[in-house]
Amino acid sequence: MKILILNGPNLNLIGKRQPEIYGNISFEEILPKWQSEFNCSIEYFQSNIEGELINTIQNATADAIILNVGGYTHTSVAIRDAISSVNIPVVEVHLSNIAKRESFRHESLITPVCVGCILGFGMESYRLAIGYFITRKD
Amino acid sequence: MKILILNGPNLNLIGKRQPEIYGNISFEEILPKWQSEFNCSIEYFQSNIEGELINTIQNATADAIILNVGGYTHTSVAIRDAISSVNIPVVEVHLSNIAKRESFRHESLITPVCVGCILGFGMESYRLAIGYFITRKD
Amino acid sequence: MKILILNGPNLNLIGKRQPEIYGNISFEEILPKWQSEFNCSIEYFQSNIEGELINTIQNATADAIILNVGGYTHTSVAIRDAISSVNIPVVEVHLSNIAKRESFRHESLITPVCVGCILGFGMESYRLAIGYFITRKD
Amino acid sequence: MKILILNGPNLNLIGKRQPEIYGNISFEEILPKWQSEFNCSIEYFQSNIEGELINTIQNATADAIILNVGGYTHTSVAIRDAISSVNIPVVEVHLSNIAKRESFRHESLITPVCVGCILGFGMESYRLAIGYFITRKD
Amino acid sequence: MKILILNGPNLNLIGKRQPEIYGNISFEEILPKWQSEFNCSIEYFQSNIEGELINTIQNATADAIILNVGGYTHTSVAIRDAISSVNIPVVEVHLSNIAKRESFRHESLITPVCVGCILGFGMESYRLAIGYFITRKD
Amino acid sequence: MKILILNGPNLNLIGKRQPEIYGNISFEEILPKWQSEFNCSIEYFQSNIEGELINTIQNATADAIILNVGGYTHTSVAIRDAISSVNIPVVEVHLSNIAKRESFRHESLITPVCVGCILGFGMESYRLAIGYFITRKD
Amino acid sequence: MKILILNGPNLNLIGKRQPEIYGNISFEEILPKWQSEFNCSIEYFQSNIEGELINTIQNATADAIILNVGGYTHTSVAIRDAISSVNIPVVEVHLSNIAKRESFRHESLITPVCVGCILGFGMESYRLAIGYFITRKD
Amino acid sequence: MKILILNGPNLNLIGKRQPEIYGNISFEEILPKWQSEFNCSIEYFQSNIEGELINTIQNATADAIILNVGGYTHTSVAIRDAISSVNIPVVEVHLSNIAKRESFRHESLITPVCVGCILGFGMESYRLAIGYFITRKD
Amino acid sequence: MKILILNGPNLNLIGKRQPEIYGNISFEEILPKWQSEFNCSIEYFQSNIEGELINTIQNATADAIILNVGGYTHTSVAIRDAISSVNIPVVEVHLSNIAKRESFRHESLITPVCVGCILGFGMESYRLAIGYFITRKD
Amino acid sequence: MKILILNGPNLNLIGKRQPEIYGNISFEEILPKWQSEFNCSIEYFQSNIEGELINTIQNATADAIILNVGGYTHTSVAIRDAISSVNIPVVEVHLSNIAKRESFRHESLITPVCVGCILGFGMESYRLAIGYFITRKD
Amino acid sequence: MKILILNGPNLNLIGKRQPEIYGNISFEEILPKWQSEFNCSIEYFQSNIEGELINTIQNATADAIILNVGGYTHTSVAIRDAISSVNIPVVEVHLSNIAKRESFRHESLITPVCVGCILGFGMESYRLAIGYFITRKD
Amino acid sequence: MKILILNGPNLNLIGKRQPEIYGNISFEEILPKWQSEFNCSIEYFQSNIEGELINTIQNATADAIILNVGGYTHTSVAIRDAISSVNIPVVEVHLSNIAKRESFRHESLITPVCVGCILGFGMESYRLAIGYFITRKD
Repeated sequence: MKILILNGPNLNLIGKRQPEIYGNISFEEILPKWQSEFNCSIEYFQSNIEGELINTIQNATADAIILNVGGYTHTSVAIRDAISSVNIPVVEVHLSNIAKRESFRHESLITPVCVGCILGFGMESYRLAIGYFITRKD
Repeated sequence: MKILILNGPNLNLIGKRQPEIYGNISFEEILPKWQSEFNCSIEYFQSNIEGELINTIQNATADAIILNVGGYTHTSVAIRDAISSVNIPVVEVHLSNIAKRESFRHESLITPVCVGCILGFGMESYRLAIGYFITRKD
Repeated sequence: MKILILNGPNLNLIGKRQPEIYGNISFEEILPKWQSEFNCSIEYFQSNIEGELINTIQNATADAIILNVGGYTHTSVAIRDAISSVNIPVVEVHLSNIAKRESFRHESLITPVCVGCILGFGMESYRLAIGYFITRKD
Repeated sequence: MKILILNGPNLNLIGKRQPEIYGNISFEEILPKWQSEFNCSIEYFQSNIEGELINTIQNATADAIILNVGGYTHTSVAIRDAISSVNIPVVEVHLSNIAKRESFRHESLITPVCVGCILGFGMESYRLAIGYFITRKD
Repeated sequence: MKILILNGPNLNLIGKRQPEIYGNISFEEILPKWQSEFNCSIEYFQSNIEGELINTIQNATADAIILNVGGYTHTSVAIRDAISSVNIPVVEVHLSNIAKRESFRHESLITPVCVGCILGFGMESYRLAIGYFITRKD
Repeated sequence: MKILILNGPNLNLIGKRQPEIYGNISFEEILPKWQSEFNCSIEYFQSNIEGELINTIQNATADAIILNVGGYTHTSVAIRDAISSVNIPVVEVHLSNIAKRESFRHESLITPVCVGCILGFGMESYRLAIGYFITRKD
Repeated sequence: MKILILNGPNLNLIGKRQPEIYGNISFEEILPKWQSEFNCSIEYFQSNIEGELINTIQNATADAIILNVGGYTHTSVAIRDAISSVNIPVVEVHLSNIAKRESFRHESLITPVCVGCILGFGMESYRLAIGYFITRKD
Repeated sequence: MKILILNGPNLNLIGKRQPEIYGNISFEEILPKWQSEFNCSIEYFQSNIEGELINTIQNATADAIILNVGGYTHTSVAIRDAISSVNIPVVEVHLSNIAKRESFRHESLITPVCVGCILGFGMESYRLAIGYFITRKD
Repeated sequence: MKILILNGPNLNLIGKRQPEIYGNISFEEILPKWQSEFNCSIEYFQSNIEGELINTIQNATADAIILNVGGYTHTSVAIRDAISSVNIPVVEVHLSNIAKRESFRHESLITPVCVGCILGFGMESYRLAIGYFITRKD
Repeated sequence: MKILILNGPNLNLIGKRQPEIYGNISFEEILPKWQSEFNCSIEYFQSNIEGELINTIQNATADAIILNVGGYTHTSVAIRDAISSVNIPVVEVHLSNIAKRESFRHESLITPVCVGCILGFGMESYRLAIGYFITRKD
Repeated sequence: MKILILNGPNLNLIGKRQPEIYGNISFEEILPKWQSEFNCSIEYFQSNIEGELINTIQNATADAIILNVGGYTHTSVAIRDAISSVNIPVVEVHLSNIAKRESFRHESLITPVCVGCILGFGMESYRLAIGYFITRKD
Repeated sequence: MKILILNGPNLNLIGKRQPEIYGNISFEEILPKWQSEFNCSIEYFQSNIEGELINTIQNATADAIILNVGGYTHTSVAIRDAISSVNIPVVEVHLSNIAKRESFRHESLITPVCVGCILGFGMESYRLAIGYFITRKD
């Protein structure tokens, strides 16, 4: 099974800045652990550019996508349309509990075109999503 | 570790009506399996009465609560206040992807006082939440 | 034919308080008359507790439900969900013309999951609903 | 007793187009049956022109009006004012359950100046309204 | 003179949890003091169940009601209707200054059917309300 | 100088129904008096049909128009466009103080395309408008 | 008959600045003409200070008030309350057609507590209001 | 092929008033040219009366309708319902780019029940719509 | 202990106009009674001018302020800022139950910067506030 | 004559995915046909990246632009500003009738800065736009 | 060059209260320094009274105005109108970053009638505005 | 001291197009002058691509950032998050007074995460911001 983890703007900074908030582990470090734990292949892509995220969704060859498009979550009709155009199941994740933050973060344009959403558990949000796909496939 | 699963209105019908939509497995049947899989104690309570859900939250002695208060999700300030008054971590779950449904289901009064939220995965939403607590505690 | 009349909060006071407004006939008095007139069986339940109304809807064995959930009309997603979960046709009724009253009474969460709605005719609203079901069944 | 049934735009098509939806009985056919059943005189008028509906309300000599102004329900302050200017009791009816349809059909400008409203029962909505007036008068 | 103090959801926790916020005195402890101070009879009832609060309002035999329905303040049309249905003067109180809190706590459905409202003074809010009724009656 | 007074829906009833509210003088009676007082020619047209009002505006040959389109004031983009299409100055009048009535009467689509508006003075609203045009022209 | 003309902020500039827009006649110049024309006593007061306008309304001894409170029209609950507290009839006037201007000028807090409103006729708005009071009194 | 061009309020003035804005060619002049160019039959109807537009839609026998209902575009649920009731494809056109004009012209009630919409090209909007139908049919 | 009672616009009329509504006792008469009853010093200031109210708040030397700024309650950010800038506890009071009145009176800009609010008890609202401060200080 | 067709996010998939919805002809295939039919030069550019679309608009040397920026239609102030900065006429097109889809697709930020808009005709929307430019130029 | 600095409500407290927030330098102290630095004449006026601010704007003889009307920024149409009535360029300044504060501080009625706005730099906001005018004039 | 000036979409056209509006000086020309005037190092970057602006913010090594992200100001949560993630002080600038323009330009998502904002002064907005940083640092 091949899973694509797709991260949007500013998520390249995780594990690199503000460790007191986001922890000091980066995606680069944690991905091999998850591959071992779940015995699956994980492809990783991050971009700050909305259109590159769309390109990646369109060209994805994975069996499943775990997606966190950060600030584009609340504004990108274009990413929503890209998800709708592919036949791969997508799960949306968020590190923080966005319902606790500014009101413009409460509505996601992405959720209605995904299988579901997992939010608020930090890096565990991603790990739970991987577990969902692995269990579902077996 | 002791986990309380707390279900609100109409969730007693899961596995009993409309199996083509909600599957034909009830909480009564699935809970023992989860207890075995995760080697934990799961207490289960369901009520259609808002105040009984509040009573149960107030009196909970579990290490963690997994909560789906159904239709009260969008209207109950009182349940929100009950969650705020206890020191037990709470995870909100939903069977369906509520972002796909009527607009009055898009805002949850509950999410901002929980650790996080898992929605859209059917019964798997609960199982992922259990996994989260088990992993977190270990 | 068996019809369940289900009344919500404060409707137990009809015929007992403010007779100058609501008349001086209670449901207890009028139900036998309607049973005779329409030659049908009428089951009656009233509760001020939202969850008990939900319980009654879930457990109903009637051929038809006539429902007036009073103040819960405008706030109860949970009662709406209960109606959606049963296969019994439901007609919503209101004693008063709620469109003439405060603006928070103008929108009903219940109507979209019912067959139809009859409002503004006092006790006659219920009688018209009974007549509808009797005629339909014949 | 004389009852005026007043139908607004597009209701002349009932029983003539889309019978799979609206049935294949027209007002012209059903009115004689209702006159017999209720032993009353029913005057019928339909117009697609808002002002003609107002003219008819102003000039009505009936004891009661049953009114369905179709699409004008949600936009016509002028029809509302016409109803307010006459001393004849008016009952609003709708064939469909307008609360299930587009949001611009949820608010009626007409209901607050009527005795009450009956909606969602197809042709039966009219028949229930006739029954209400007959019973009330006797 | 007999006063009913009626408390809604989560107010049973006052004096029992989070003493640093709500103080460490409970209603059970403070009521006798107030009875002595004002030389009146105080009946006390608390429930987390909306419908039980309605039952208690309907059945009240007190000369005055002091009411704090907590989270139901902002959502309960049904409690509002219950207050409207009784002839006993009601004063609404709140421990906290709800205007300082989340925006969904700014509007009270209850205030328009009460004599007045006292908010923001902690337990003193209740004591001021008692004083109001005692003075008014003398 | 020739002035056209153009009245919309239900204004044909003035002086004929509800004299306790609208007085017992009709436009037919008062117009000759105003013609004498101001020594001008007054043409009068009333219709309940929106399109006929538009026709009349388009074909008007008067030096000035005094217009009260009643309930169409708040909904008719089409009448607004007709006023914009002619080169005759238009003054809007209202018998009642519409700012005191239902909120849907507070906004006029017509005022922005008129010279000005006079409201709340009963029949005097029209007379003041005539006086305005006469004075302006002299 | 004694009429008080009460002008609010910035209306002291009329006839003094921007003559191409507001004409080059000031209130000081035009008032004597109106007193002659209508053979009445006109008291004039202008202030840029909201509270002084309130003081003047409270202390007015005129038979009628013609009032244009400029920018306070849209924001002053306090002036509205002052008008409500006196028994003198008040007519609101505006030089410009405020419905053509910025949207925050469309709603007047003042109109609902006045007899009526005259807007859009420049200085003639005041003169029409004087005429109204003179005619009414005779 | 037979095409019905249906124009609403004030569109009878095109080519007759304000030529500097709308050009000096009327529908009466241009229709023969389009019939020649596209070798099709064009029926033309214009009315300022909403209900007559509905009548015409209901009775249409054309293969296609090109419709511009002017000011009714933004307010007429009744015209929308008429379009829904016929099986003829309808294309909505507008002379001006309504998105550049007042905000109440931005939403069309008509577009969702049409094949599509062409706006902003003056008389060319109609010609493009004719071309669409001709091409589609061939 | 020294208490400042600060009244805003139109409150100088209390006890002087409309005694059937506001009673016939003025602040000038009642203050000495309250000083005796509570054995405290009460300073009194009223102004119709927003800025003078701000001046008085800034220069206050009292131990407590009881404030009712009337119509400025709903519009004055400036008074709110003045309250925030002083270290004296402020209690907001209202004679009437503002929640029963026009919707623009439902939101107070002042409450969030006060200790609390007492509304709806007529002159007793002030007396309860005095009692609060006296008790708190003792 | 040189026309630039500029397509935004996800429009590269037309003719490649979901042929049952979008047909099985791609822009690459259809452009030569249109160039022949209209005897014009058509330049084609597609990008999923908002900024590249802006770059292309800024650098365009065509006589006309036909533009469909997909999901950016509803969110991109930046593309709107780019269109405003060039002197080339732009026509907006959409494949689908966006007025029939989710409400966030109803408002276009782009239309007010274009000549006009053509929507709902599939690939024909583009062809009609080409025809418009060709005719206009000749 | 002569610059008028005009400060509104509560800004007289700067440098006098809460020095930990606003610093301990007052306008009285800092103005001479700025006069020296920029070699210009600075007139200073502060008032808590809205109307006095209007008076000062109307009577200003300066070459430029730097204006901070504090809480009136968000509510004063009257100050806005005063600025529009003078021919002196006005720059709006704010000490704090009002976009970070309560939502009712986000919209300024003043900005659209000023040259520009400088906000968030404390006393430096004023100094930057002076620099702007000096540079512009030289 | 090193300052980064970061410009967003369409700002590359300044000084190159529409000189009658934006002047005929470009950033390339003016930057050396400012470096001389303030004796500081200014790095300049412009992009039309949202993600490249984010990249540049993340990688910035300047002591201060002056930022104008043009049309992204009102829509980019992602740029806002990038600013929040760096420890460099940011000042937002705008050439035009955006409060005078379309309503969708009135709210900036960027301002709340900046030190402050300077708007409306053309190129001087940038120069004032440089001056702010230079003064602050010295």
